[in-house]
Amino acid sequence: MGNIAADPSHPRYQSLLLRHRLEQAEKQGMLAGSAMIAHGRGEAFDYLLGEQTINSARVATNHALAALRGAKHPVLSLNGNVAALAGRETLLLAEMLQCPVEINIFYRTPQRMKALLEHLGKIKLDEGIDVTILGAAPNARIPGLEGPRAKCTKEGILESDVIFVPLEDGDRCEALVAMGKTVIVVDLNPLSRSAKMASITIVDELTRVMENMLAMMSSPIEDLASNSYDNEAVLDEALHHVATKFTQTSNEA
Amino acid sequence: MGNIAADPSHPRYQSLLLRHRLEQAEKQGMLAGSAMIAHGRGEAFDYLLGEQTINSARVATNHALAALRGAKHPVLSLNGNVAALAGRETLLLAEMLQCPVEINIFYRTPQRMKALLEHLGKIKLDEGIDVTILGAAPNARIPGLEGPRAKCTKEGILESDVIFVPLEDGDRCEALVAMGKTVIVVDLNPLSRSAKMASITIVDELTRVMENMLAMMSSPIEDLASNSYDNEAVLDEALHHVATKFTQTSNEA
Repeated sequence: MGNIAADPSHPRYQSLLLRHRLEQAEKQGMLAGSAMIAHGRGEAFDYLLGEQTINSARVATNHALAALRGAKHPVLSLNGNVAALAGRETLLLAEMLQCPVEINIFYRTPQRMKALLEHLGKIKLDEGIDVTILGAAPNARIPGLEGPRAKCTKEGILESDVIFVPLEDGDRCEALVAMGKTVIVVDLNPLSRSAKMASITIVDELTRVMENMLAMMSSPIEDLASNSYDNEAVLDEALHHVATKFTQTSNEA
Repeated sequence: MGNIAADPSHPRYQSLLLRHRLEQAEKQGMLAGSAMIAHGRGEAFDYLLGEQTINSARVATNHALAALRGAKHPVLSLNGNVAALAGRETLLLAEMLQCPVEINIFYRTPQRMKALLEHLGKIKLDEGIDVTILGAAPNARIPGLEGPRAKCTKEGILESDVIFVPLEDGDRCEALVAMGKTVIVVDLNPLSRSAKMASITIVDELTRVMENMLAMMSSPIEDLASNSYDNEAVLDEALHHVATKFTQTSNEA
């Protein structure tokens, strides 16, 4: 990482820390070939958001957490980037929610699954986290998807009523919504298909979302979701926020 | 690449082709660790532009080419991503302009330089391109920069009056401008420091820019730069273009 990232007061510290986690994960074989490019796209959109949790993202996060806490069968789904960036926080949240996590990757190979299981297993052991990690032995399929990316587990994703799938692909998001589930995504691009398809879309950077969720676990559910929820309004506010940044900068020029 | 990218009619063909070039370049050791992330950021901004050459980018490209053609000592600078994405087109343009190219990388290692020289040397040989490739033996420094990234050649970058430095870092762009050169950058982010610092900023995707430049080489210079040039106005139009995309989508929601 060099010296910069050893200094938390450096303005790029958080960004460099996330890159470092991804680079480590790549060395460990956890990531797909497109993982770094996907992260770069996220960096660009986060830059446009001002690298902050905007108000509508906080509203969406609150409602997402209320939905997970009120669910009969919640599940937290992880892919390679999620495991690399926020594996620990995802396991901690699952423990608090007393729900399983499921590794669910688009480009499934035995090597990647093994690397991801080892990474999460090590965190679980090191931190003494009591949580079930599903995904190693898929025994069901997500209807409407083809090939290896349809694979899931019956006791995890298939039977879940509320599913948290950060950084999810649009096709899979759509297929999960079509199953009648409450689908929560984290996506920095408010124009993406996942963002538009999901039941609850959190337009925010994943590690900030996980920090917010863990901090909010102590709040009563009714405080988190006191009003009705409108995902279109949430996306709309994110779009306006970014557009304003462009037009303000433009006017300053 | 899979089957998708073998089919040029696929809507993601161009995007997948560029990724494939970067993946090959990474295997050959041409890229820095941050190359894929940088490409992903570019993808996000290109998505916001609609993956097209907007009018202001065409104006900037015309003026850039006129400046290069009217220069006493033009030079085209390449880093790893430029060599991977548009090495061939850069060499072809240099041959037409009868100017040298110079490999100039931020994270300089002997291994990366060797890989880049081999890559460009192979294209030169395969295509029979007559062009001087500088950078292997730096004998000068860019004032105002520290460490290996200041290195350049006297007969290339140092003595150039017009320099084409696509995908350039903000510090180096600033240092080149401070030397009194006409600095032409290609940057998909109209808010970046390079974009704001440069003499001529082309807010467009590199391979489209190179195609446009090669196609425009047959036009008379006076047709390319018939009006005075205002880089702030060019950036402004790019910002407005992106902002409009956000607000239009927002209103449709």
